[in-house]
Amino acid sequence: MSAACRNGAARSCARIGGLGSATSHPAASCRRWQARRASPREAGVARGRCAAVLKGNPVGSPSLSLDLDKVRDALIRMEDSIIFAIIERSQFLRNDKVYEPGAIPVPGYNLKTGDQQSMVEYILRQTEQMHGMIRRYTSPDEHAFFPEDLPSLVLPPIEYPSLLHPHAEGININDQVRALYFEELLPRICEEGDDGNYGSSALCDITLLQALSKRIHYGKYVAESKYKASPDTYDPLIRAKDEAGIMNLLTVESVERRVVRRVRNKACVFGQDIQDVMGTISLAQEDIEQAESKVEPEKVAKLYNDWIMPLNKQVQLEYLLHRLD
Amino acid sequence: MSAACRNGAARSCARIGGLGSATSHPAASCRRWQARRASPREAGVARGRCAAVLKGNPVGSPSLSLDLDKVRDALIRMEDSIIFAIIERSQFLRNDKVYEPGAIPVPGYNLKTGDQQSMVEYILRQTEQMHGMIRRYTSPDEHAFFPEDLPSLVLPPIEYPSLLHPHAEGININDQVRALYFEELLPRICEEGDDGNYGSSALCDITLLQALSKRIHYGKYVAESKYKASPDTYDPLIRAKDEAGIMNLLTVESVERRVVRRVRNKACVFGQDIQDVMGTISLAQEDIEQAESKVEPEKVAKLYNDWIMPLNKQVQLEYLLHRLD
Repeated sequence: MSAACRNGAARSCARIGGLGSATSHPAASCRRWQARRASPREAGVARGRCAAVLKGNPVGSPSLSLDLDKVRDALIRMEDSIIFAIIERSQFLRNDKVYEPGAIPVPGYNLKTGDQQSMVEYILRQTEQMHGMIRRYTSPDEHAFFPEDLPSLVLPPIEYPSLLHPHAEGININDQVRALYFEELLPRICEEGDDGNYGSSALCDITLLQALSKRIHYGKYVAESKYKASPDTYDPLIRAKDEAGIMNLLTVESVERRVVRRVRNKACVFGQDIQDVMGTISLAQEDIEQAESKVEPEKVAKLYNDWIMPLNKQVQLEYLLHRLD
Repeated sequence: MSAACRNGAARSCARIGGLGSATSHPAASCRRWQARRASPREAGVARGRCAAVLKGNPVGSPSLSLDLDKVRDALIRMEDSIIFAIIERSQFLRNDKVYEPGAIPVPGYNLKTGDQQSMVEYILRQTEQMHGMIRRYTSPDEHAFFPEDLPSLVLPPIEYPSLLHPHAEGININDQVRALYFEELLPRICEEGDDGNYGSSALCDITLLQALSKRIHYGKYVAESKYKASPDTYDPLIRAKDEAGIMNLLTVESVERRVVRRVRNKACVFGQDIQDVMGTISLAQEDIEQAESKVEPEKVAKLYNDWIMPLNKQVQLEYLLHRLD
């Protein structure tokens, strides 16, 4: 990763809790929260064997930068998180009871209707309470599924640089993300049936929902960076409220095809049963079709093509329509 | 996956909340918790395109079965979760402030010492409160990091089949898991520095800590299944409290070497930057050494070899030493 890129990530996303330049004493801290019992016998041998050197280009979670390269890197990195989370959820059966209000007697009820919440709704609400307290939803690239119920902060708030038009704050299509997830995604990634792993399934659901929400709402940054690159092209369409015209500008089919191919390849590679001895993994079409995978690459690619990218573009469109307000 | 295996997973791990055979109305449930707004335009096109068919052999999370094949499948599946979680954490810098008591003003203090908790301790405690309420730690293959502080259940308890010797319940080496994580693992998987992603880093830490804890404590099932396969070999050693003798029986170097090679391959494959067009991924030694990866495969393999497997064997030893009590 370039210094610039890392920097972008840095600036960005104190997201669930940056505190700027408070003094830090890492060594002390680590020791304090560590070994209260002896470490394994191999400790002496292991220590010092590997230095902390990393190859590759890790990308911070979506930065609040509008640099097009950084936006692109962040989107690509989010694909990995989404596919990892899909594979994690797919190890369990569908477990419909998790999604059925009243099937599992959670202590959560809708104030207006009196209906008992489903287990996944209960755990998602609890999770948002916990993450909300530590500032998750004060970050402009995080969006709650129950924004009306967020708790008070237990940490002092962070000021984020305002890179987006103020209208961005009001855009939250998590109802649609939820619909996408439960109607389209879940039935395609899990085998039908009930294996009793209700809590584990719900926790995987929540990780995946949060990853999808972040990817989809990142459309705000995509849109702003596209707008900044050529305001004169967008301005007349925005003034005319020409949704089709804007959507047309936002759509670059060759790029979308590349994303879908890359996602297919990722699902194929990450979903493989890796052995201790193996030579190569082939990404040729016919080999992918033959390969055993924990998820079906073509289906994950299709979900991206038919749902995730369109919802991302919907966020872009909603953002741009009010860009001149 | 064989029917038997899926079955094992099913029996097992209602772990954070199986409820047995309560009546379920999945369709109703799904609709209730879904779309409150229209889905994307592509809905009509997408719907019905992909049937819910899965290839491959998804393995449920560690079953409570003692069948050796199922134990092995569960251990292999846990490797994937651990490596995914390592890759997720490695996208952020080290962020030492997260681990330093007082560096981030979380509202959590040690009752005895008066010390403020570190951010990661605070969030881990909060997470265990939430997961504890929904029965996570009533499952015999889950182990809390703060078992003395678990909350009351908000759901009726589940009775698990007792496959292990009662002594198993008292074995919890999460203090050592924590030490392994903060002293050995974190410094090797993250670049030094501070990118401000404190909350995100802590959430990744917790996912990874939980995955490591599950893998390491699964030694209880490994030990019981080995014991069941040849009690006559173990009994005299157990009676003599012959730790070295037991450890010798538990250690099959050829198997351990295979695990380490497989983990190396997984870290290599899952850590790759996958492109939209690529032919094959090579797992030959010299290619792995050249490849750019989000984590260093040899390092992850070494962590497995030097730390994760030894701690797992320590659990096995502790379990077996009291197998005849």
